[in-house]
Amino acid sequence: SGLVLVKNPHLDLMEEDVLYHLDLGTKTHNLPAMFGDIKFVCVGGSPNRMRAFAQFMQRELGLAAAGEDVADICAGSDRYAMYRAGPVLSISHGMGIPSISIMLHELIKLLHHAKCRDVTIIRIGTSGGLGIEAGSVVITDTAVDSSFQPRFEQVVLDDVVVRSTELDKDLAEELLACSRDIPDFPTLIGHTMCTYDFYEGQGRLDGALCSFSSEKKLEYLRRAYEAGVRNIEMESSAFAALCGLCGLKGESCRLHLL
Amino acid sequence: SGLVLVKNPHLDLMEEDVLYHLDLGTKTHNLPAMFGDIKFVCVGGSPNRMRAFAQFMQRELGLAAAGEDVADICAGSDRYAMYRAGPVLSISHGMGIPSISIMLHELIKLLHHAKCRDVTIIRIGTSGGLGIEAGSVVITDTAVDSSFQPRFEQVVLDDVVVRSTELDKDLAEELLACSRDIPDFPTLIGHTMCTYDFYEGQGRLDGALCSFSSEKKLEYLRRAYEAGVRNIEMESSAFAALCGLCGLKGESCRLHLL
Repeated sequence: SGLVLVKNPHLDLMEEDVLYHLDLGTKTHNLPAMFGDIKFVCVGGSPNRMRAFAQFMQRELGLAAAGEDVADICAGSDRYAMYRAGPVLSISHGMGIPSISIMLHELIKLLHHAKCRDVTIIRIGTSGGLGIEAGSVVITDTAVDSSFQPRFEQVVLDDVVVRSTELDKDLAEELLACSRDIPDFPTLIGHTMCTYDFYEGQGRLDGALCSFSSEKKLEYLRRAYEAGVRNIEMESSAFAALCGLCGLKGESCRLHLL
Repeated sequence: SGLVLVKNPHLDLMEEDVLYHLDLGTKTHNLPAMFGDIKFVCVGGSPNRMRAFAQFMQRELGLAAAGEDVADICAGSDRYAMYRAGPVLSISHGMGIPSISIMLHELIKLLHHAKCRDVTIIRIGTSGGLGIEAGSVVITDTAVDSSFQPRFEQVVLDDVVVRSTELDKDLAEELLACSRDIPDFPTLIGHTMCTYDFYEGQGRLDGALCSFSSEKKLEYLRRAYEAGVRNIEMESSAFAALCGLCGLKGESCRLHLL
């Protein structure tokens, strides 16, 4: 049916659903009227960038004069920022799996309450590239963990549940086809390694703590490359797992800056 | 000597240290002049709250007229916000272990470069209480994981290193003694459970996904209470581990709102 799925029998029994971190709710807002026509959701870490992206989409879609401002739909909360441009929502998610997970739980419920259909969600932003040219865009086929395995371990109470981190292959191919019209950004499909830590977890030598040599770091990154990893970031595995379980067609495209 | 320790032999070899997510650096900023006299750092999730806290400290310390604004020292970055009031720094860290870890790595290097001495760091904010009165403040003695163990598992490349999550006992007692002057907020010392997930990880029945019954949730929370847990949040274990390793006297005080 193309509807967004929630997998929680308790939700039907609730009189009101408050989306705390988005400052929205089923009793305080008419979610179908506000969001029922949304077809695309783009998410990224930084609120300023997601605002700039919404302004860009407004111009691309011919919806507003250049430079016109967009309003933050979640202005009552400073946890996330949300903007819309026609059928496109642009939302920030902060840094790391816990931060994006909170936003995605509430976004998925929002799309469900709003009765949205056939929604595509794309994660955009920057990441660290591995053995690829600076300025390349990596479209993720599968998110992998720090052992290069395609899995996301979710703690549920004190159990560990293992979830799949595959993303939508057709959408990845469609985005790759689009990239052929933009010659400035070499684009490829590859695995994305998702870590819980930016410094020690990604082999950086410039954190407050570092217990490994530059040789050990290079040997690790070489193994990652051989396993098919082309970029490293901190949210893709939770994004892939949650979108997959809730029937959202999802993809992650990251620009490798340096 | 009271100095903040970095444990990274590579840092001495670097010509410049850029604290990316704080928009500060050793070549672009005179860190000793800007921060050398800092004695207290207070950190919390929300940027607006940390701004309000800096304004409150300004008034408490008699440094400014009521309502006077404070400037965001990290205004060039939208990842974190940082304010100062005399010897007190007030910084936001976003939500979850990965987000606070990035901030703490860069803060610890900042305090090290600035040659700060005898710095006390206190995490303030809200949390979910367990078997305690609403409006209570929990001072953490030890952060525990979802199995109630006093440990933080840090992935370093593809190894897992287990770190201690004990906080400063003397500082906890000192803060408890301060609380006796403020009768409106019942205050106690207890364990704090730190999770990677807000919905499934903390036993909430109102996420987009929920596979457990309310009975199973209650049984889990009862076991947590019996293990000494008095509140639940998402950053304390990484905070305790990093502060402990880098010689920062650290404590976490959280208000249980509901």
